[in-house]
Amino acid sequence: MAVQAQILKGTRDFLPERMILRQYVTGKLRDVFENFGFEPLDTPAIEYAEVLEGKYGDEADKLIYKFEDRGGRRIGLRYDLTVPLARVIGTHPDLARPFKRYQIAPVWRAEKPQKGRYREFWQCDVDTVGSASSLADAEVVCVAYDALRRLGFRHFKTKINSRKMLAAIAEYIGLSPDQAPAVYRAIDKLDKIGIDGVKEELAECGLNSPLISRLLDLLQVRGDADVVLAQLRTKLADSAMGAQGVDELDEVVRYLRWLGVSESNFEVDFSMVRGLDYYTGPIFETVVEEPKIGSICGGGRYDGLVGLFTNRPTPATGISLGLERIVDVLEELHLGGVPEMKTVTYALVTVFSQDTVGESLRAASELRAADIHTEVFLGKDKLGNQLRYASRKGIPFTIILGPDEIATGKAIVKNIATEEQVTIERAELVDWVLSKHEVLK
Amino acid sequence: MAVQAQILKGTRDFLPERMILRQYVTGKLRDVFENFGFEPLDTPAIEYAEVLEGKYGDEADKLIYKFEDRGGRRIGLRYDLTVPLARVIGTHPDLARPFKRYQIAPVWRAEKPQKGRYREFWQCDVDTVGSASSLADAEVVCVAYDALRRLGFRHFKTKINSRKMLAAIAEYIGLSPDQAPAVYRAIDKLDKIGIDGVKEELAECGLNSPLISRLLDLLQVRGDADVVLAQLRTKLADSAMGAQGVDELDEVVRYLRWLGVSESNFEVDFSMVRGLDYYTGPIFETVVEEPKIGSICGGGRYDGLVGLFTNRPTPATGISLGLERIVDVLEELHLGGVPEMKTVTYALVTVFSQDTVGESLRAASELRAADIHTEVFLGKDKLGNQLRYASRKGIPFTIILGPDEIATGKAIVKNIATEEQVTIERAELVDWVLSKHEVLK
Repeated sequence: MAVQAQILKGTRDFLPERMILRQYVTGKLRDVFENFGFEPLDTPAIEYAEVLEGKYGDEADKLIYKFEDRGGRRIGLRYDLTVPLARVIGTHPDLARPFKRYQIAPVWRAEKPQKGRYREFWQCDVDTVGSASSLADAEVVCVAYDALRRLGFRHFKTKINSRKMLAAIAEYIGLSPDQAPAVYRAIDKLDKIGIDGVKEELAECGLNSPLISRLLDLLQVRGDADVVLAQLRTKLADSAMGAQGVDELDEVVRYLRWLGVSESNFEVDFSMVRGLDYYTGPIFETVVEEPKIGSICGGGRYDGLVGLFTNRPTPATGISLGLERIVDVLEELHLGGVPEMKTVTYALVTVFSQDTVGESLRAASELRAADIHTEVFLGKDKLGNQLRYASRKGIPFTIILGPDEIATGKAIVKNIATEEQVTIERAELVDWVLSKHEVLK
Repeated sequence: MAVQAQILKGTRDFLPERMILRQYVTGKLRDVFENFGFEPLDTPAIEYAEVLEGKYGDEADKLIYKFEDRGGRRIGLRYDLTVPLARVIGTHPDLARPFKRYQIAPVWRAEKPQKGRYREFWQCDVDTVGSASSLADAEVVCVAYDALRRLGFRHFKTKINSRKMLAAIAEYIGLSPDQAPAVYRAIDKLDKIGIDGVKEELAECGLNSPLISRLLDLLQVRGDADVVLAQLRTKLADSAMGAQGVDELDEVVRYLRWLGVSESNFEVDFSMVRGLDYYTGPIFETVVEEPKIGSICGGGRYDGLVGLFTNRPTPATGISLGLERIVDVLEELHLGGVPEMKTVTYALVTVFSQDTVGESLRAASELRAADIHTEVFLGKDKLGNQLRYASRKGIPFTIILGPDEIATGKAIVKNIATEEQVTIERAELVDWVLSKHEVLK
């Protein structure tokens, strides 16, 4: 009896056409990450469970896949790429600092699968460990900016806020520390549930009406980054933490301008909170505005996390781009420059008969020696079927070497899309395809 | 208290220097795989356990990582890339056939870790599903050949055998079918335990001395592929399966020659068995002879496996290259063409003071716009420390933009390796580094 060819919900096969696009995107991201001097790193998918636990917050912790191996070890599948990075710093204390790395890899979450939410998905992270400078924060924002622009995105905005300022604001309006997390979560929903929804949730947190109004007035300050920050500087003048938060954001904004990030692509937004527990300073979230697909990347400073593994304070900051959303959007938009390739193959060499297969194989080897991706038809089908296979797969060129062509030193090349067919000298086959190949690239 | 930064035994962090080499290797492999028209595919790391179980043989099955998720589903981490491929064919019945794909991805095995044996390691597989042609077998052998040659390997040999011939040989000498698996396992150890060791194990299998001699005489036939096959053709003339096995290997050898695989890089070897249960036809194993590191890739035809998921017979064949061994060997040998790069970064722009950081950032942005991988020093260290950081990381060029240089429109570029230092026009910075950059590539 057959085994059911079932795939777990929330996980996916990436078939060739989709994989070609994913590899295009990860290739571009790698280029940009390395362009800023971030080095590649890879870590295991499986970690000791205790490495992962207690870092993300209670809600997230429940979503870590965990199991016991046959040796009784408690194992977890990595939930993100940030905590494993922190563990790496602890495991390899001699790494030169600042340590700038990128990692493009899958993570696992025991989620209830739904549209756009997966149990296995890929993250593309850049992080700098060992630098407290706001330049490190600005740099990762700039990396995301460059990456999105190179992928053809234009209408996106990186919202910038600071956990320090959120804490200062909470203090300023008189919230107790244990009210803060629920309040942050409520604020975080502004985009989803609107201002009235947030007011309701804040009331449920035990805030009275005047308090809610004061809070929302503060959070909804908008406009030029300098003006917004100046306003908050005055209001939070009494709070050391608030002043520090304003200073840091001020620096981040200045560095972004020097790095050439366009003013239209970032804004200070105090209502942006980010979910994870480990953030301590500036936080970022990039939202694509056209088409309206929401958050496509996020991150922030987490100065406390790495120290858990190293026993000494180690500042760190980073940003994570979600590969899935980027690929979804590119596929939908057909943004400029994204190749629409169904196959990696450029040429199919057909096989006329068992007597001529040697000639077909030799031709294929010549084409491959010139790096022209070439398939030889496998099987004994009639020529018509072989051409249909090429057409179905979207292979641009088909090469026919029948007994007549072989006898006269010729080759027939057929362009599948235009149905044009030309007879050329067999000796010129590679050069002929190469001349067309350039056009295809 | 700090969390122990422990990594599971048998898993590894790949730090940048090692990752740069791994990415170089996987890049080359991708090039070769696509050159033969194999398309990229990715599948989830987590599969239903029953998809994986019962396919590899009892010994291997014990090494599958399995656990129950919170929904009571039995989950397994993929053990190889072949069974997931078979499942993909079942899940997506409309895929055009033959379906030629490659996958470069980690697999997991609950092994006792030891030197060269890991719990998480990467496989690089090419497979063709839906073709019974021996050309498909020859093609995957040729892919491995091309890949190893492009990576600088010269002294390696692909041993070729056939499960059909092994079965015919077993029948010929009068083995009962249930003796065969233990006999195969004994034969497989020839390289490790020598001829006397194998004789001992075969005796333990219940074979008497004359039987053992007949078997070993058959298996140890060596020499020119045509001669060897002709010999076996005569001996196995009475067995339909034997004759088919000889014919298939005969074809594989002919195709390999047409594809340009050097005679010195393959041989027919009846003592090569391969461990996995699912093989049904030709089998392959490539051994690197210099340095003597043993098996670096293996595979074969598995005409029964895919049908388990599709309910209809589906021939398939493929080969798997072990990334870990390839990288180990390349690192040891410094084979020609392998880059010895410690970092992806070409240039470090130093920061003289907070007053000049804007100039440094602008220079970095210009360099990056020309795809010159550039870091800006993060922090307020003295210039000496900044230069030492570049030196430690192996960054070739350091750029100094102090107040004097800025005032006079100059820049200082220092070559870390040679300690040479030149002052150039600031306006020519990008062109200057680009001219050196070409040399570095």
